[in-house]
Amino acid sequence: MAEALSSSQKYNGQVPLLIAVDCIIIGFQGGVLKLLLFKRKVAPLAGHWSLIGSFVRPEESLDRAAKRVLKESTGLGQVFMEQSHTYGEVKRDPGARVISVAYYALTKIDDSKLAQVQKHGANWFDIGKHPHLILDHELMLQDALQQLRNKAHKQPIGFELLPQSFTLPQLQVLYEAIYNRSLDKRNFRKKILAMGILEKLEEKDHSGSRKGAYLYRFVKEKYEELVVQGFSFEI
Amino acid sequence: MAEALSSSQKYNGQVPLLIAVDCIIIGFQGGVLKLLLFKRKVAPLAGHWSLIGSFVRPEESLDRAAKRVLKESTGLGQVFMEQSHTYGEVKRDPGARVISVAYYALTKIDDSKLAQVQKHGANWFDIGKHPHLILDHELMLQDALQQLRNKAHKQPIGFELLPQSFTLPQLQVLYEAIYNRSLDKRNFRKKILAMGILEKLEEKDHSGSRKGAYLYRFVKEKYEELVVQGFSFEI
Repeated sequence: MAEALSSSQKYNGQVPLLIAVDCIIIGFQGGVLKLLLFKRKVAPLAGHWSLIGSFVRPEESLDRAAKRVLKESTGLGQVFMEQSHTYGEVKRDPGARVISVAYYALTKIDDSKLAQVQKHGANWFDIGKHPHLILDHELMLQDALQQLRNKAHKQPIGFELLPQSFTLPQLQVLYEAIYNRSLDKRNFRKKILAMGILEKLEEKDHSGSRKGAYLYRFVKEKYEELVVQGFSFEI
Repeated sequence: MAEALSSSQKYNGQVPLLIAVDCIIIGFQGGVLKLLLFKRKVAPLAGHWSLIGSFVRPEESLDRAAKRVLKESTGLGQVFMEQSHTYGEVKRDPGARVISVAYYALTKIDDSKLAQVQKHGANWFDIGKHPHLILDHELMLQDALQQLRNKAHKQPIGFELLPQSFTLPQLQVLYEAIYNRSLDKRNFRKKILAMGILEKLEEKDHSGSRKGAYLYRFVKEKYEELVVQGFSFEI
């Protein structure tokens, strides 16, 4: 691999080359999509809000690095995570030549874990009302949201973001938050029920009205079948 | 950026770290999707077929590196190109720690340029009948084909792959090649014409039948509008 080594030496002589992963961690609470951000502690960006990231270690794959970052900086373990895009503009980071591979993750927001998250200097923000982000992290967020929207058109969505049981209005609000527009209630109910991924429970949720709304849960097998198989959900 | 430098030194002390781009160059001819491959000239993979790739230079972005590779190794200039996925398994390349950012490109196949392509050691192969590929390049190809399929569901496709004028059967064959299944002729015509991106020409193509088939061309403005706007094409 003479080619490889000489190319490597060139890099080293000129600029430090680094590979990072950055995680766009998206949750859903109170009818809005939320983003987990982290306050940088190290100069030159100390005090500024950032996605959660790290350099990739020699012995780990990109996917493993992303999982480690999530676990280390938030205590969050098993969450849905997918690579979105890789950012490699020459001057994207003023300190070095850093190529960053972005991953987006979907997770339930567990208030009981908020203290743990905050201990790591992280916090949840409503997407759209979040603080200014360092470097090209806003672009990373927007690209990840677009990818999430595309995903919602071809796979069921919600298993990772909703509590175990939920009402149809809650599910609709999630789709509205992802698509960033309101949806027709009757049409939404019809299409979502036709997927066959929802099971109606006996209980009702009475927090929204006295009459209450039936609770549903995902039928995991059917849901996972559709994730693999794909479909087109147009609403 | 003390963090960055120390992480960089670690990499250098342990394994050479390199960033590569690999291009999945897809064309369409004779009713089949084709792939441009390159025969490696350098050990240890000399004589094996590979996607067209290169290491990223210190002064170039990932996107620019992909464009340079395409231009240098095939003479092809302006083609549609999009990043697909980044590959970073630790042992994916036995010679070094190479992170590879894959791009897929769509291009017309110009027989007049075949000699030029071959001069660079490259050749077009029917996808599915192509030779065994080195490293994880087969995975890169499959991921890119999946991305092309997803793209065809939400944007018009064909402008980059078809000649300036074409018949509806030719366009259908392209969609069938991308989706890898046959489509209903009447349904396809109806849906594709409803998009409003096609203009019917006066001339007919008589190569397929004596009666002939009308030639069409893309209405560029409308086509580009739909690329930006997106839609859902389900057939």
